[in-house]
Amino acid sequence: MKILFTTMAVALLVATAFAADPIPADLRETALANFKALPSTTPAVANNPVTPEKISLGKALFLDPRVSASGVFSCNSCHNLATGGDDNLETSIGHGWQKGPRNAPTVLNAVFNNAQFWDGRAEDLKAQAKGPVQAGVEMANTPGQVVATLKSMPKYVEWFNAAFPGEADPVTFDDFAKAIEAFEATLVTPAPFDAFLNGDDAAMTSQQKQGLALFMDKGCSSCHAGINVGGEGYYPFGLIEKPSADVLPEKDKGRFAVTNTADDSYVFRVAPLRNVALTAPYFHSGKVWDLKQAVAIMGTTQLGEELTEEDVDLLVAFLNSLTGKVPEVAYPILPAETATTPRPVSRILGK
Amino acid sequence: MKILFTTMAVALLVATAFAADPIPADLRETALANFKALPSTTPAVANNPVTPEKISLGKALFLDPRVSASGVFSCNSCHNLATGGDDNLETSIGHGWQKGPRNAPTVLNAVFNNAQFWDGRAEDLKAQAKGPVQAGVEMANTPGQVVATLKSMPKYVEWFNAAFPGEADPVTFDDFAKAIEAFEATLVTPAPFDAFLNGDDAAMTSQQKQGLALFMDKGCSSCHAGINVGGEGYYPFGLIEKPSADVLPEKDKGRFAVTNTADDSYVFRVAPLRNVALTAPYFHSGKVWDLKQAVAIMGTTQLGEELTEEDVDLLVAFLNSLTGKVPEVAYPILPAETATTPRPVSRILGK
Repeated sequence: MKILFTTMAVALLVATAFAADPIPADLRETALANFKALPSTTPAVANNPVTPEKISLGKALFLDPRVSASGVFSCNSCHNLATGGDDNLETSIGHGWQKGPRNAPTVLNAVFNNAQFWDGRAEDLKAQAKGPVQAGVEMANTPGQVVATLKSMPKYVEWFNAAFPGEADPVTFDDFAKAIEAFEATLVTPAPFDAFLNGDDAAMTSQQKQGLALFMDKGCSSCHAGINVGGEGYYPFGLIEKPSADVLPEKDKGRFAVTNTADDSYVFRVAPLRNVALTAPYFHSGKVWDLKQAVAIMGTTQLGEELTEEDVDLLVAFLNSLTGKVPEVAYPILPAETATTPRPVSRILGK
Repeated sequence: MKILFTTMAVALLVATAFAADPIPADLRETALANFKALPSTTPAVANNPVTPEKISLGKALFLDPRVSASGVFSCNSCHNLATGGDDNLETSIGHGWQKGPRNAPTVLNAVFNNAQFWDGRAEDLKAQAKGPVQAGVEMANTPGQVVATLKSMPKYVEWFNAAFPGEADPVTFDDFAKAIEAFEATLVTPAPFDAFLNGDDAAMTSQQKQGLALFMDKGCSSCHAGINVGGEGYYPFGLIEKPSADVLPEKDKGRFAVTNTADDSYVFRVAPLRNVALTAPYFHSGKVWDLKQAVAIMGTTQLGEELTEEDVDLLVAFLNSLTGKVPEVAYPILPAETATTPRPVSRILGK
């Protein structure tokens, strides 16, 4: 009898412990008011109809290192589809072994961000695609050289003609960027979170669901909302409390460089959180390698709250439910160079 | 009547012109005495049974930049499956933007070479795979660090266990190399030349067949023979006449560095010629970008003969028939890093 009572008492204790973070009955409803599941088809993009020919060309361009001056870097070098759509480096290494100023964001689901880059300076992916190609510390190339490279290979000219029918001279830097945007629009990664939003209760663990509830309760979803769980608005990093100088280096004032408005000092586009478990290190500075630590920093800097270890664990559990399935990409066979293909240039200009 | 005779005379002239380089009736027979068609199945390799699990693991390792110290370079960076299995650079760019000493050879069909590297210093691909990982100017990593990196990711440990069943601790540098060798053994690219050897007369154009006949007549096949049209023996570069110093830089004595034998000065493993049309620039120095020029240089240096432009064109036509079909490779999704994964190191050691 004594043993029975003890067992019951323990059972009660366990039940109470689990009940500490109950899963709200209306969790899905609340979640759907904050977030949106990924679509089952490739999203449309503005002023750039996505066609199979454009996707196929864009894939080749995305994976072609010859669009960089040195012939070493492709888009995929820093936005690697095999490793969460980024490069797992603090900041990317580019032309001449120079380091980029900010952590490379993931290309996965980037099509859903309202603007591109940490400071939102590109309004869409076709505008974004033109940046790294020309950045001296990244690909260090020029539009003219990219076009000359592509035009030197008959197969590319053929592919551009197929992707942009009706254009007299489709091998342009604009169409180069449009093709890359079309391919990137296919990089959509449905996750357990989407299955849950779509009605599958079993898609997320109860810990993940508790984390989701907490994510909304604590106010994380005030900024990290929408289809990409972020990627939509702009907020100061250090809304309540300034992060340490290593995490938020003083000289990078974020969106201030774009708008030149004092209010935009240290303001960044809200980080989209899909696949965040795959994209360490974190923040624009890439200084934080541990997702738990990143969540704790968000607690203090954005919410003004020291999150408990239990809370951090639950939030990270929810974030893990955002890790999705990357579409299968067959590695392309790229057009062969010809006698007129510009030669790779590895020196740093001005040096 | 006059018109008829004139027509006949012209027809005769044309026939004579074509007959200038007749295709020998026994071309296939002669070719089969010098060369061998690629097999239709993945070749076996010594001391390393090739299994689907090993191939799959090897593919992941081949494409994983985290096996380099910096996290920037994978095997595929210099042996890019999208561009003929090499990097189309004079010599590869590696850790710290340092340049490698020799042109990166193609990984395609490399399994058929009798030895690996330009100087044949690795007896097989599993020995070869350990080189670039540790070379200071390439991946600049250490075996211990590679193993620590792989062991930090549970998915890799699982894959190694599946690939090397029965081994207590399969995540070793040896097994790393064996898995890569297994994957590389699948990189076999059947070409029109193989179809011709296998009996299909229509697989090669008549110009390509004339080129093949000339290739054997001139003596090219004395060295460039076997299944890989090269890759088997060792000969001095400059057998008859020394190439210019830019093509054959004086300080790189080739196989001499391996054997320390005076006879091996400027001796190199015969270059395998499959897919040579895709692998410019040419020679160990990577100084020649034009395949025609490379063929002409071979004529003077190895045969002691100034080849005519017509001969060079025919030989290049034959070489084009060696461009094969690369097997389709689905780009892998790599294991995610964990808290214990060693961080990328981009600095140059000693600096």
